[in-house]
This record gives sequence, C-alpha cells and structure tokens, in this order.
Amino acid sequence: MPATTLLHVPTAEDIRESHRLIQPLIHRTPIMTCEAINEMTGADIHFKCENFQKIGAFKMRGAANAASRLTPAQLEQGLATHSSGNHAQAVARAAQVLGVPAFIVMPKNAPAVKVAGVKSYGAEVVFCECTIEARETKLNEVIARTGAYFIHPFDDYNVIAGQATAPKELLEDANLPFDIIMAPAGGGGLLSGTALAAHYFTPDTQIIGAEPFEVDDAYRSFHSGKIEHNATINTIADGLRTYLSEKTLAIIREHVTDILRVEEEAIVHAMRLVWERMKIIIEPSSAVPLAAVHAYPEVFKGKTVGIILTGGNVDIGNLPF
Amino acid sequence: MPATTLLHVPTAEDIRESHRLIQPLIHRTPIMTCEAINEMTGADIHFKCENFQKIGAFKMRGAANAASRLTPAQLEQGLATHSSGNHAQAVARAAQVLGVPAFIVMPKNAPAVKVAGVKSYGAEVVFCECTIEARETKLNEVIARTGAYFIHPFDDYNVIAGQATAPKELLEDANLPFDIIMAPAGGGGLLSGTALAAHYFTPDTQIIGAEPFEVDDAYRSFHSGKIEHNATINTIADGLRTYLSEKTLAIIREHVTDILRVEEEAIVHAMRLVWERMKIIIEPSSAVPLAAVHAYPEVFKGKTVGIILTGGNVDIGNLPF
Repeated sequence: MPATTLLHVPTAEDIRESHRLIQPLIHRTPIMTCEAINEMTGADIHFKCENFQKIGAFKMRGAANAASRLTPAQLEQGLATHSSGNHAQAVARAAQVLGVPAFIVMPKNAPAVKVAGVKSYGAEVVFCECTIEARETKLNEVIARTGAYFIHPFDDYNVIAGQATAPKELLEDANLPFDIIMAPAGGGGLLSGTALAAHYFTPDTQIIGAEPFEVDDAYRSFHSGKIEHNATINTIADGLRTYLSEKTLAIIREHVTDILRVEEEAIVHAMRLVWERMKIIIEPSSAVPLAAVHAYPEVFKGKTVGIILTGGNVDIGNLPF
Repeated sequence: MPATTLLHVPTAEDIRESHRLIQPLIHRTPIMTCEAINEMTGADIHFKCENFQKIGAFKMRGAANAASRLTPAQLEQGLATHSSGNHAQAVARAAQVLGVPAFIVMPKNAPAVKVAGVKSYGAEVVFCECTIEARETKLNEVIARTGAYFIHPFDDYNVIAGQATAPKELLEDANLPFDIIMAPAGGGGLLSGTALAAHYFTPDTQIIGAEPFEVDDAYRSFHSGKIEHNATINTIADGLRTYLSEKTLAIIREHVTDILRVEEEAIVHAMRLVWERMKIIIEPSSAVPLAAVHAYPEVFKGKTVGIILTGGNVDIGNLPF
C-alpha cells in the first residue's frame, strides 16, 4: 500500500515510514560536539547539524514528506506554498526532484538571495504585498490558476512527521540517554515533531523549546492554551517570527516540558560562538537554544543535551558581528 | 623503543608511526562533499576538513608530532616557536597537553584574537618587532633564557611527517582512486607532507600545490630550484605569506606535479562559495586550491580531487565579503 497523506497526529510508525520515504530527498546530517562550549556551559551538548541539510535547513524533511505522500493525481499540477524563507526553498527543491512545477508566493521585500535560491530550483516565484493576508490571497489565486497542491510550512501532520525525523536521527546516531533535547519555536513544526519523536523513542527525555523574548508567542501560547500573536517581530531570528498553529500547539502543550526565552544579544553571542569555535555557519534561529543554555545554567548544568541546529542560510554579506 | 626526533626525510613507516603518536592530540577530521560545487567545477571534490582540527587548523598535527617525539629531558624546559598564526596556537596547545610551558614569540602587530588564542592555551607570549630578523633574535633570547625546545613551523621533518597524516586520513577514509590531491603552498610543510604521503600510499595520484599570484615564491622556487622570496605579501591568504625552506623545497621538487597560481578575487570568491554552499568556515588560505580548480578547469574537469581545507581561524568581525 503506498504511503498516503497523514490526517492524524503522527504515530511512531508514521514517523518511521516518513523517514524511509524521504531518504532520496535528504542528507543524514552529522552530529557535532565542541569541547570548548561544553566547558563553558557545564553541559554535554550534541548538535544535530541540519545546517548541512539539503537546501541548508531541516525544512527539507517536512516538505519532502508532504510531497512524497501525494498521489500522482495530487502531484501532477505541482506544489505551491507561501514563504520568504527555508520552506520556500524546500518545496521548490522537492518539486524539482519529483519532476513537477512549483509556485512560491513570496513577499516583494524578500531578500534577493532567497528569491534567487528558490528560482535556482526551477520554481516560479509570485510576488505579493508584505502582509499575511496578501500572501494568503495571492496563494489562493495561484492555486486556482494552476491546480497546484499547497504544502503549509508547519500546520500539516506530514510536515510535522517529516521534521520529527531530525531528532529521530539524533537519537539513533548519538545513541545516548539524553536528559534534554532542544529546538527553537517558530511555527512549531520542528518543536512538535521533536516532542513526538521523543515521546515515542525516548520517553524519559525532556523537550525544551527556545524562543526570542521579542517574539515569545509560543511561550505565551504554551501557557494560555490558545494561539498568541506578536505585536512586533524585531528579532534577528528571522525563522521564528511566525506563530504556532492549532496542530503544532496541541502537540507542544501535550509533550513539551518548557519554553525558555532569550534576549537578542544572547542569540548573536551564541551564534558567534558556534561560528568561531565549531567553524560552522548557522543562521540566527539555530543559535536560540544554545543562547538558552547560557541564560538558564541551572537547567542544563551536568546534563546530556541534544540541540537541533536548524539551518545555515544567512546573508554572508550582512552579518550581525 | 620510544619514537625519536626524525632527522631524515620521513619514510612511509615514519608517517604511520607519527599518526599513532599524535592520536591523543588530534581529531580525525571529516571529509565533506558538495554537489553544487561539483556541478560548477565538473570535478568530484572531496574536502578534508582540517578547519575542524584542534586549534582550528592542520598545524596541530605537525606540532604534536614534533613535541611527542622529544625525550623527557628535551621536553622538560618547555616548547618555543615564533609565529603569528596557527603554528603558535598548535605549539601552545601541544605544550599544555604535555604539561610543559610554552614560549611564543609574536610580532607586536599580531591580531589580538590570535594573541588571545595562544594565551588561552596557557602559553607565555613574548612580543617582538615585525621583521623576520627581530623574530629570530627574540626567539634566540627566549631559548637562551628558558632552555625551551624550538619547533620550527615547517623546516622540520617531524612537522612534515605530522602534516602528512592529514592526506593519509583522506586516503583511508575516502578510499577513492584520487587523480589529484591539492594543498596550498605556504612554508611547504603541508604540501611536502602531502606529496610524501601520496608517493608512499597512492603513487599514481598527482599532487598539485596552489598559491596566490601575490606571493608566488613557491611557484618560482619549484621552477628555479632555489628558495625564492616575495617582494610584497599583500594577499588575503595570511597563512601563505611565508616562503619555502630547504627541506620542504627538496621534497616538493621531487614529488609535486605542479603549482598553480590564483588571483586575490578568485580566493575570496572560492572562500565565499564554501561558506555559502557548504556552511563551513574556512580561512582564506584554505580557499586557494578551490580557486585554482575554478581558474584551471582543463586540469580538473572529470577528475576525482582531494582538497585539504587547512583551517578555519578567521576574524569573524573583519571579513572580505
């Protein structure tokens, strides 16, 4: 029986099947450690390097899973999404590999480098105004015109199950009794997928989300139980400016231990530390969990910690250092 | 019989023994590939990531080997060297691990970040004027005062045998019939070690050095047979500003196929390409071989190529992008 689109909270077997399905579209990324950072933090940290993933971010996993589960008829007219970031490139790349067109709605102020990235995978870019409403309106127009299949960046169980394969690999390859696994909280696709993977495959491990104070909607949603928004989004962690969805919030409320918030300077400091000490390039969102390890030493000292480094797509010509 | 200081051109067994000796002081670094760069160049390139080495550069290997071969009596008074770069950190780190003092002569205009790096390994930094002569005079004073053992950055068979363990690992871990292996040419320690390792362990592989036009002393020495100097050293590849020595030149003349020269802009372009596409941080010297692959496509197209990425110590706050 071919895999089909998931319409329920992913089970352990759904995550395993997702992992098998997406093999042709992803890298199995390495895990790195850094003695200097362990000495500084007093924790034993294992970094899952999704900055080395295809398209430079974990988003490839979710898009690949959603696309791989479509029927030939669903796939035939291509894929569509709206995103100014890594999900746009992931959908474009998935469509390219599967041999169908991709239509990506991007705000007209999207960085040229990201537009170029999406186009490099052969996708058609459709520009819109810079509001969420304009994006959705334009996306609906594109779908009406093309018949393309919409892959939401996170409010989709296939995407969540795909992201869950990153912590699954971390568990398999590190083969350690993790006290804590961390992921940043943006739309919640990775954090909810990580929480599910831990729930099934390492139930004694705590899952801790990390988020900038500036966009602490996930923290507030986690405590209030409803989708909270952000009044301003002036964070350097551009991947975390969005808010949770019904599907991701429900999983996070059930399986995440806590969400910790950090200051902007702490994010830049942690990002620079990884660049300088580990010699790898991570984007600001990736640095948020390490910033939380520094900010809340009492939580992490003496612990075995997994951190998912979410991506490495950063404008090299425009750095915060 | 304990290993002793090498006073002859290293044999295959000397390189093997060096590799065993330095295990406690080095990482076995990973090999990375990049589909996008392979597509651009038409070559199948395997990067040996010495930017992930201890102290952030391959120099750890040579210093570790030289230090590990000293008798307790030779080691007792500590280690000394002059260097403004990675060799300084390597000697400081080797001394720290072996539990002896280190005395590092550095020019007084050395970047603060490099001075701090050396001091972070517990070494004593002795400043001097910025000429080669001043460095040597000051080093002799330090040795007279302390009795420390001088480890030359490259004109030393122990250092050459240590650097040869980087290509040895590349051959063992990639396990491919390389057509070409490349290293940049500075003082020639890595290039001569690479040439020796290839001569013993993969004799059909060509060894190609790479060098900036701005400091093309190795190219000229390779052709003239004598140590050539540079009138100016205005290259971004700060690790390559020095010139060859008698020991490195003799090995390079015997076992290296060619030395290719590249423009400064080509170095910056190649460095940026590695940062953006591979998400790893390399210093400018590391980018010189890839710049040569771009500049001389007829040499590399269709070939299986190994490139040693020499290091990742770069001032993040002062980038050429």
